[in-house]
Amino acid sequence: MNFIRDLIQSIKDKHSVVSMGLDPRLDKEGEIPQFLIDEYDDPNEIILEFNKTLIDNTYDIISVIKPQIAFYEKYEAFDALKETIKYAHKKDLLVILDCKRNDIGTTSEAYAYSIFKVLNADACTINAYLGIDGVKPFLEFKEKGLFVLVKTSNPSSNDFQNLFSTEILGIPDSKIEVSVENATLERNYIKMARLVSKWGEELTQVSNFHNLGVVVGATFPDELKSIRNIVKNSYILIPGFGAQGATAKETKNGFYEDGLGAIVNSSRGIMYAYSKNGKYSANKFGEAARDKISEMNKEINKVINLDNT
Amino acid sequence: MNFIRDLIQSIKDKHSVVSMGLDPRLDKEGEIPQFLIDEYDDPNEIILEFNKTLIDNTYDIISVIKPQIAFYEKYEAFDALKETIKYAHKKDLLVILDCKRNDIGTTSEAYAYSIFKVLNADACTINAYLGIDGVKPFLEFKEKGLFVLVKTSNPSSNDFQNLFSTEILGIPDSKIEVSVENATLERNYIKMARLVSKWGEELTQVSNFHNLGVVVGATFPDELKSIRNIVKNSYILIPGFGAQGATAKETKNGFYEDGLGAIVNSSRGIMYAYSKNGKYSANKFGEAARDKISEMNKEINKVINLDNT
Repeated sequence: MNFIRDLIQSIKDKHSVVSMGLDPRLDKEGEIPQFLIDEYDDPNEIILEFNKTLIDNTYDIISVIKPQIAFYEKYEAFDALKETIKYAHKKDLLVILDCKRNDIGTTSEAYAYSIFKVLNADACTINAYLGIDGVKPFLEFKEKGLFVLVKTSNPSSNDFQNLFSTEILGIPDSKIEVSVENATLERNYIKMARLVSKWGEELTQVSNFHNLGVVVGATFPDELKSIRNIVKNSYILIPGFGAQGATAKETKNGFYEDGLGAIVNSSRGIMYAYSKNGKYSANKFGEAARDKISEMNKEINKVINLDNT
Repeated sequence: MNFIRDLIQSIKDKHSVVSMGLDPRLDKEGEIPQFLIDEYDDPNEIILEFNKTLIDNTYDIISVIKPQIAFYEKYEAFDALKETIKYAHKKDLLVILDCKRNDIGTTSEAYAYSIFKVLNADACTINAYLGIDGVKPFLEFKEKGLFVLVKTSNPSSNDFQNLFSTEILGIPDSKIEVSVENATLERNYIKMARLVSKWGEELTQVSNFHNLGVVVGATFPDELKSIRNIVKNSYILIPGFGAQGATAKETKNGFYEDGLGAIVNSSRGIMYAYSKNGKYSANKFGEAARDKISEMNKEINKVINLDNT
C-alpha cells in the first residue's frame, strides 16, 4: 500500500472526500444507542458492534475512517480499535488514526511502531511542536500517511497558532528589538505550514501529492486558503464539519480545481445522526449515518467539482 | 491527594528532586536484561517485573516515576503500566505519565479520564499547541498535576519553539508589515510560557506552587532561566539529564534558592545504568539504578542547596 496513492484512487472510485470519524461514547444520551449498551458487557464488544454497523452501512460511499484514539483509551477498548481497523481494511477503507502524537527519538519510534505496526493504521495525525526530530521517525514508514496539526478547528487555536512569528538569525536575543524592521512576520500556523512544506520537499509524490499532509479546521476558511498555497503537495485533513459548525462552502479552499487535495471529516454529525432526526429509531443509526454521508457527498462534491475528474 | 502538595512533601522527606523515567525496551541490547525476557512470555510480565525491581531498589531516594506511555503502547503492555502505577503508589511514589496528549473538548476529556481515572496517574505531560481549549479538560482534575511542553530537550526544538513571535491586535494581516515597530518580539517558547503563566493565575497554590507545571529540557540552561522567571508558580519538569548530555549544573536555573521549583528526570541513564558500568552483572540492574540515583541526588543537591531547606 501507499497511503496517498490509495487515498486518491479511493476518492476517485467512490466520488467521496468524506472521512467518517469514529469517536465512540458510551456515557451520553443520543450517542451509542442504549440497546447496544444493554446487549454486551464488555465495552470492546459494544464499540466494535457499533463501528461495524456504521462501516457496513457506509463503506461504499466514503474513502476513509478516522478513529479518535482517546475514546478507545478511555474505555480500554484497544481490541475494538484493532478489530475496527481490520474490519475497515476488509471493506476497502483507509484508516487515519487521530492521535496527535508527539515526542522525539526512540519515543517517537515507539509511537510510530504502535500506530503503524501494532494497530496497523494507514495514517495518523501528529503534533510537530517539537520540530523535525519528532516527525522523522514517522516518516521512516514511507508508505504511511501523516497529517501535521497546522491550524486546528477550535476557537482557542488562536491562543498560540495565531501569534505572529519570524525567524531572526545572527543577532543576540537582547538586541532583537532594534532589528525588527528586517523581520517578516507571519502567524505561527503559517510558519508551521512552511516547516511541513520544507520537510516534504524530498518525499516521493504520487499525482503531485506526498504522504506528509496537514490538519486545518473547516472553521477557518481564510486560513485554509493561505495554507493550501503553502503546502502545495500535501493533502489537507479538514475536521470541524457539522457538529463544529462548518458547511461544504467552508471546505472549498482546501481543494484544487480537480477536486483533489483534501478530505473532510465529520464524527458526531455522522455517527450520531440518528438522534438528531426524528425519522430514525435508534436501531437505524447505520442508515442515518449513510443518509448523512450521502448528503455531505452531494453538498461537498457540488462545491468542489469532484464529479468532473 | 494534591499533586503539588504531595510532591513538595516527598521532595523534602526524601531529599531528592529526581524522577526516574520508566521507558521499557525489549528489543535492544543493554536495555531490559535478557534473563528477564527469557523468563516470561508476556511483555506485560517482563516489563512489570523489571519496573517493580527498579522501584523496590529506589523508592526511598526518589519522589517520582515518569513512565513514557509510547513504550507501553508499542508492546501492548497496558496492564504492566497500570500495575506499575499501582505498585508505585504502594511504595509512596508519585507518578507522572509522559504522554504529551493534546486535543480539544470531549476528546481532551476522554484523554484526561483515561490518564487520571483509568490509569490513575497523579500528573501528566500535555502539548498546548491547541490553546486553552485543550488544557481546560485536564485542569478540571484540580488535584492532579500537569506539565505543559514549553522548551523541549531535543536539538530541533529550535525549528518552531525558537521562532520569534508577537501578538498584534486590531490590524488586518495584510497591513502588519508597516506596523511592526509596535510589536514586541519574543520566542515561541517564551510565549508558551506566558500562556501557561496566564492559565495558572486562578489556580490554588500550595507553598507558592499550583498544579500547572511546564517541561523545559536540561539541554537549554539559558532558556530554563528565562522560563523560570515567567512561570513563577509552576513546577518545572526537566528532562534530558544523563543520556541526552546535561549535568547537574545545567539544571540549576530551574530551581529557587530553597531547592524547590523543579524535578529532574533521567530515564535510560538510570534504568539501564547496569549496562554502562562493568561492575554490575545484568541481574544487578536494580542496584545499578540505585547507585546512579544516589550519585544524581548528591550532584544535584550540591548545586541547588536542597539539603538546607
